[in-house]
Amino acid sequence: MLCFVTTDAAIEPSFLRDALTRCVDRTFNMVSVDGDTSPSDSIFVLANGMAGNRPFDHSNGTVFEEALGYVCEHMARAVAADGEGATKLLEVTISGAASPGDARTAARTVAGSMLVKSAVHGADPNWGRVVCAAGRSGAHVDPERISMTLCGVPVMAHGMPVPFNESALRSLLADSTVHIVVDLGLGSAHATAWGCDLTHDYVTINASYTT
Amino acid sequence: MLCFVTTDAAIEPSFLRDALTRCVDRTFNMVSVDGDTSPSDSIFVLANGMAGNRPFDHSNGTVFEEALGYVCEHMARAVAADGEGATKLLEVTISGAASPGDARTAARTVAGSMLVKSAVHGADPNWGRVVCAAGRSGAHVDPERISMTLCGVPVMAHGMPVPFNESALRSLLADSTVHIVVDLGLGSAHATAWGCDLTHDYVTINASYTT
Repeated sequence: MLCFVTTDAAIEPSFLRDALTRCVDRTFNMVSVDGDTSPSDSIFVLANGMAGNRPFDHSNGTVFEEALGYVCEHMARAVAADGEGATKLLEVTISGAASPGDARTAARTVAGSMLVKSAVHGADPNWGRVVCAAGRSGAHVDPERISMTLCGVPVMAHGMPVPFNESALRSLLADSTVHIVVDLGLGSAHATAWGCDLTHDYVTINASYTT
Repeated sequence: MLCFVTTDAAIEPSFLRDALTRCVDRTFNMVSVDGDTSPSDSIFVLANGMAGNRPFDHSNGTVFEEALGYVCEHMARAVAADGEGATKLLEVTISGAASPGDARTAARTVAGSMLVKSAVHGADPNWGRVVCAAGRSGAHVDPERISMTLCGVPVMAHGMPVPFNESALRSLLADSTVHIVVDLGLGSAHATAWGCDLTHDYVTINASYTT
């Protein structure tokens, strides 16, 4: 990935660098297509100052950073949705984690799990795979405290399965965006990761492409 | 996975436990089909002592431990080779690592890389993906020191590509066992991990199976 962001705003370089780091940390760094990385993955921001505003810095740059974050999230989602062979965007939100690091780790692991990605491809409400992925992620997890929704439909509450209309949920899971929300019930930290479904086309593309 | 090993040997329980831990660490704990885990993955060893030998312990159990390791490796390889939809066993050996932990991490990451698994499925001599996976594994890696063979054929030496006969190597990569050997050139630690190729059948099986 080579990403270039340009703006005509006047900005202090040190603030721009810090704001970009924060934005990338919760957007591009939370994207997984297949878990593999490229040596060239990079993002650049260029600001030429032609807007002539009072330069943004740590004291007045909030609105600029929000806008930069909006752009980064939009593109990060696009990277995931456009993953090789993908037919769906997978959005995984972990809340109630014991720490921000736990929330990030669990969200990334669920979004990158091959079994979860396959289930999403098949519009299969397989919440057990989500629990397993969160459990092996390294984040602190207590199965009896987990609650979960798939596409807004509760499937698990405080570690117990919640009955749901399977055919209705399968229809929702056939949508082009699938949102999995897991409340770990342990704290107040949260994070979102983006991925995509695993398809036959992913295998076809990557089994026959030589670099 | 539920694995049961039985023996009629007489063995000190503490030695049996330690020997099993060491054997599992380099065999079952180095297997990846898709990176996901099952809550029931477990191995049991039962010894009834009916052989009537002088009980094996830490002083005289070497031969027993070797035999136990042989059994564990045989079954670990079988688990990988029999992965969902797999057509090939992938064996990844990392040598020359700076530490045993680095060797294990790099071997597991290469064996579990979706891009490497797809390339193996396509019999594609895509050594760049192996380098990328080792590089992102967290192990200490210096690209200029890496040497690599695919199915015994040198493809990289001290960070430089080595010319090879592509059609001949593709034929070797079409075999049912593919061996990738990477020398990181940094130390003397080594480890082997086992995985399998990523196929259309993996997607088919896991997109349509509800637990």
